[in-house]
Amino acid sequence: MNCKNIAIVGLGLIGGSVLKALQGFENATFYGIDLDETVLSEAKKQGLISNETLTSAEILKLADVVFVCLPPDATLSFINSNIFKENALITDVSGVKQAICKKITQPDLNYIGGHPMAGKEESGFAASDAKLFQNASYLLTPTPEHKQEHIELLQKMALYMGFRETVLTNPEEHDRMIAYTSQLMHIVAVALCDSERLDDSKRFSAGSLRDCTRVAKLDSNLWTRLFLLNKEDLVDCIDEFSESLKKVRNLIAEEKESELKAFLEEASDRKRRFLA
Amino acid sequence: MNCKNIAIVGLGLIGGSVLKALQGFENATFYGIDLDETVLSEAKKQGLISNETLTSAEILKLADVVFVCLPPDATLSFINSNIFKENALITDVSGVKQAICKKITQPDLNYIGGHPMAGKEESGFAASDAKLFQNASYLLTPTPEHKQEHIELLQKMALYMGFRETVLTNPEEHDRMIAYTSQLMHIVAVALCDSERLDDSKRFSAGSLRDCTRVAKLDSNLWTRLFLLNKEDLVDCIDEFSESLKKVRNLIAEEKESELKAFLEEASDRKRRFLA
Repeated sequence: MNCKNIAIVGLGLIGGSVLKALQGFENATFYGIDLDETVLSEAKKQGLISNETLTSAEILKLADVVFVCLPPDATLSFINSNIFKENALITDVSGVKQAICKKITQPDLNYIGGHPMAGKEESGFAASDAKLFQNASYLLTPTPEHKQEHIELLQKMALYMGFRETVLTNPEEHDRMIAYTSQLMHIVAVALCDSERLDDSKRFSAGSLRDCTRVAKLDSNLWTRLFLLNKEDLVDCIDEFSESLKKVRNLIAEEKESELKAFLEEASDRKRRFLA
Repeated sequence: MNCKNIAIVGLGLIGGSVLKALQGFENATFYGIDLDETVLSEAKKQGLISNETLTSAEILKLADVVFVCLPPDATLSFINSNIFKENALITDVSGVKQAICKKITQPDLNYIGGHPMAGKEESGFAASDAKLFQNASYLLTPTPEHKQEHIELLQKMALYMGFRETVLTNPEEHDRMIAYTSQLMHIVAVALCDSERLDDSKRFSAGSLRDCTRVAKLDSNLWTRLFLLNKEDLVDCIDEFSESLKKVRNLIAEEKESELKAFLEEASDRKRRFLA
């Protein structure tokens, strides 16, 4: 398919990184859309976009591919309230997929949900990095009606941006898996930091505290929405984890030594298999 | 104090690393004690120890400083059942301290509890590394009766081995702090891996899963004992964490958006202050 003009909407950490990582892709021309004029100026100054005096609406009329890199609610309202070029491919980077995919109201839009599994503690365009996606997984949620050429184009772009692999899944599976692999880990990290114990523990801490709480330094606006938009899957996941925690807690409290050892061994073996 | 002869008991990951990191310290002579003859041969071959044909009892008669680097129960029984040189300084590396310090039966022994806050996923002498302690914290639990020169010698050795700092504390505070900074993190990591969800999640995973479960690949024999030997502090800690988890779980389930955001913000700010 034609991929002459690429628009990135929202030049934050992810949008900025997509823009930087895609530079040079099939000699395409890049355009940026952002409410923050200083970010647009900076992207222009760095030679990353060719907006000139075009308005957002004019850019969307030109764009063959549109990456919507906004928070989830803004992503949905942007897609539902703008007019895109005929046959343009629209994709997003939101960490929940049913809440977007199932609520798109524009008929016949070539929308494919996307979720680049990458991030870092800093946010904003200044933190964006062409190398952010290296060795990461790029999840795509096409529907059965999607044209193969659109999926292939996104896979080609993913490879170009440095992703390790693209994974084709559906919004339901995506949200169920992500509740565990990403959302639960963030919940655990913040719950571990919801303690006065943390304040005094610097001199007593080692790698395990650092790693288990690494993602606690999160964007609370974004994650509040991500958690609520995936409420059911996430609550299931937290409940299952709480049961595991209770199990090991009781084995310790009741000094059931051999059962405790078996529990640790099984969990630890499962992690070894995961790594293998 | 005199520090001509240093004995390391148990040449596993920690003992081997102490042996390697201390090489050259004040021109001391090093001796190794281990039930595994092949490990002793390897340490001799690498020029790390000067055992010659000395028996363990003979080594202990010579040693001015003895590092007991065994699992906690073995540490206690080794210290209680051996004869040491008069005025020798005995220290250990066990991750719990009350269970050792309070149970030493030898009167007038110069024992100072120690806990190098370092480790890695591999174990055994082959995994030991002179650089293991770099940037780590070394916790010491001297009693008020300890001679200042003994404490200073351990601090000097810690600096030589590359530790970032030595922290003087008491066994009670040590165990209470470590229940949170290390033991709870290991409990969380194994409880996160106590799920079939992990098996399918490789393609859907990113850094948060990797980091939160990093320490799940643990030595189940060792950690079973460490958990049970610090049962009360650890169960307190798990219960407090479970409450935090329940709190955030209910905010999500009941869609209390502003309270959820405030919870995330507070925990995340606490982590930022910790890092500052």
